[in-house]
Amino acid sequence: MILVDGQAATSVDVADRGLAYGDGLFETIAWHHGAALALDAHLARLGADARRLGLEAPPRELLEAEIRQLGRGRASGVVKLLLTRGSGGRGYRPARPAKPRRIVSMHPWPQLPAADAALEAWLCRHPVSANPAIAGIKHLNRLDQVLASAEWPDEACFEGLMCDVDGNLVEGTRSNLFVRRADRLLTPGLERAGVAGIVRAAVLAAAPALGLRCEIRTLAPAELAAADELFVTNSIIGIRSLARVRGHADWVFTARDCAEQLAAHLRGQGVVA
Amino acid sequence: MILVDGQAATSVDVADRGLAYGDGLFETIAWHHGAALALDAHLARLGADARRLGLEAPPRELLEAEIRQLGRGRASGVVKLLLTRGSGGRGYRPARPAKPRRIVSMHPWPQLPAADAALEAWLCRHPVSANPAIAGIKHLNRLDQVLASAEWPDEACFEGLMCDVDGNLVEGTRSNLFVRRADRLLTPGLERAGVAGIVRAAVLAAAPALGLRCEIRTLAPAELAAADELFVTNSIIGIRSLARVRGHADWVFTARDCAEQLAAHLRGQGVVA
Repeated sequence: MILVDGQAATSVDVADRGLAYGDGLFETIAWHHGAALALDAHLARLGADARRLGLEAPPRELLEAEIRQLGRGRASGVVKLLLTRGSGGRGYRPARPAKPRRIVSMHPWPQLPAADAALEAWLCRHPVSANPAIAGIKHLNRLDQVLASAEWPDEACFEGLMCDVDGNLVEGTRSNLFVRRADRLLTPGLERAGVAGIVRAAVLAAAPALGLRCEIRTLAPAELAAADELFVTNSIIGIRSLARVRGHADWVFTARDCAEQLAAHLRGQGVVA
Repeated sequence: MILVDGQAATSVDVADRGLAYGDGLFETIAWHHGAALALDAHLARLGADARRLGLEAPPRELLEAEIRQLGRGRASGVVKLLLTRGSGGRGYRPARPAKPRRIVSMHPWPQLPAADAALEAWLCRHPVSANPAIAGIKHLNRLDQVLASAEWPDEACFEGLMCDVDGNLVEGTRSNLFVRRADRLLTPGLERAGVAGIVRAAVLAAAPALGLRCEIRTLAPAELAAADELFVTNSIIGIRSLARVRGHADWVFTARDCAEQLAAHLRGQGVVA
C-alpha cells in the first residue's frame, strides 16, 4: 500500500522532480513487531538531509501517522519514505517555495539469509561518485548503486562493496562497511561520497562500550586481506558478517563475534530487528 | 501532451526506477518548423548512453512516430524524451531483462532572451560530482544541477557555470561551455564529469572550418579573466554569448563574433533553431 501526499495511489505526476532529476531523498525503515525501528534517528536524518537540499520536511506527526496507517495489522515490513521537491520549477532551478511531495509505502519484509549463513560480497568496479557537497545524504541519485549492483554474476552474492573514484572503499551498495582488526573497528569516512547510515552511527556509538576502538579513515581494498572480521550494516539487514569478498579479489573471513555482539547490543536498543 | 509507453498519460508508476534511483536517461530536442532538430545525433546519443547503462533503447521508428504525433500541428516546441529502467528489480539490482519505460513529452518553446541580449552567468559553488564511469551520460541523476541552479539570487542570470570537485570548470548547469582566446577555442574535457552535449560536438566539428583551433582541456575559472569570448551551448538555447560572469568572481566579455559565426553555421546545418 502506498500513500502519495496522504492519498492511496499507485502512480505519481510524470512531472515530479524526483523522476526528472532525482531531486529528493528517501529513508528505509524496519517495521518490526508493529513499530518503526529507530524512527527518531530516521526522521532526524530526513530533516537534516532535507535542509541540505533546501527542502521542507513534512511534520513528524504527519509521517508517523501515515507509517502507522500503513503498518496497521502488520507484524513486520519495510517502510519506504520518499520525499521529492514535487512538480514545477524552471528546468533545474527549483520553484520557491517548492511544494514537496511525500510518498510513504509499506513493503513485505525481505527473505534474508539465516543469521549464521556464510555471506559473500562482490568487490564492484563501478565507483561511487565523489562530491563533498552532497556526500552522506540519502538522496535519489542512485545510479552508481544500480550499476554496481548489476555487476555480480549470480545471486550467491549478498552485497557489493564499492570504492570511491580514487579506489578506496566507501560502503556497500545498500549498506555501510566495517572492518575489525584486533580491537580496532575501522569504517570509511564519508566526507566525499557515501550514505551516512543510521545503523552505522549506532555501531560507532555502541562500539567503545564493547571494548572496540573506532577509526573513521581511508580504507584501501587491499587492507581487507589483513582484516579479522568484516561486516555490513543497514536498517533492514541489521548487522551482517561477510565470510568472503570476491570479484577482482578473493578474501575469506571467519570471525564474526564482534558483529554478533554489536547486533545483540543494537537489538537491545531497538535499532535493528 | 505526454506519452508514457505510447499511451497518453499524466502519471507514472510510483515504483518506476527513474523516480526511485534516477535509473535512466533523457534527451531534450528542439522541435522547429515542424521537425525535430539533430534527431539523428540525439537518438545516437540515447542509444550509446543506454548501452552504457545496460538499457535497451526503443526502436528509432517508434520514437520518431511518437515525436511526430506530439508535434502534429505545432510549429515549435521542446521534445523531452525520457527512458527509465521501468519498474521492478530487487532493490538497486536491476531485473534481467529489464523492461524499460519511455516517456515522450512536448513542451512550449521557452521565452529566450533576444539574440543580442547581454547575458549573465553565475559562477556556482556547488560542484559537479566526479565519476569517470558515468561521465558524459545525460542520465537522470541531476541533483548537482538542481542545487547549483538554486544558487543565483535573481532571474537576471541566464545560466550557472559549474566546476568539478577539484575546482576546474566543467559546464553550465544545462549547457556546455566554450572559451575563445584569439583563434583558440577551449572547452573542458568530460572524462570525469559533465554531459557530452549534441551542440558541443557540432561546435567542435564545425570550428576548424571557421579558422578556430580547438582544445579540450582542464580549464580553471581564473582563466576566464583572460578570455576574449565566452559562450554556452545546448539544443534549445543554441549558442549563446555570455557578457558577464558573476558570483564569487566578476568578469565582463564584449566579443561575440565567434559565437555568432558558429550559430549561423549550425543553423545552416539544422542543428540549432
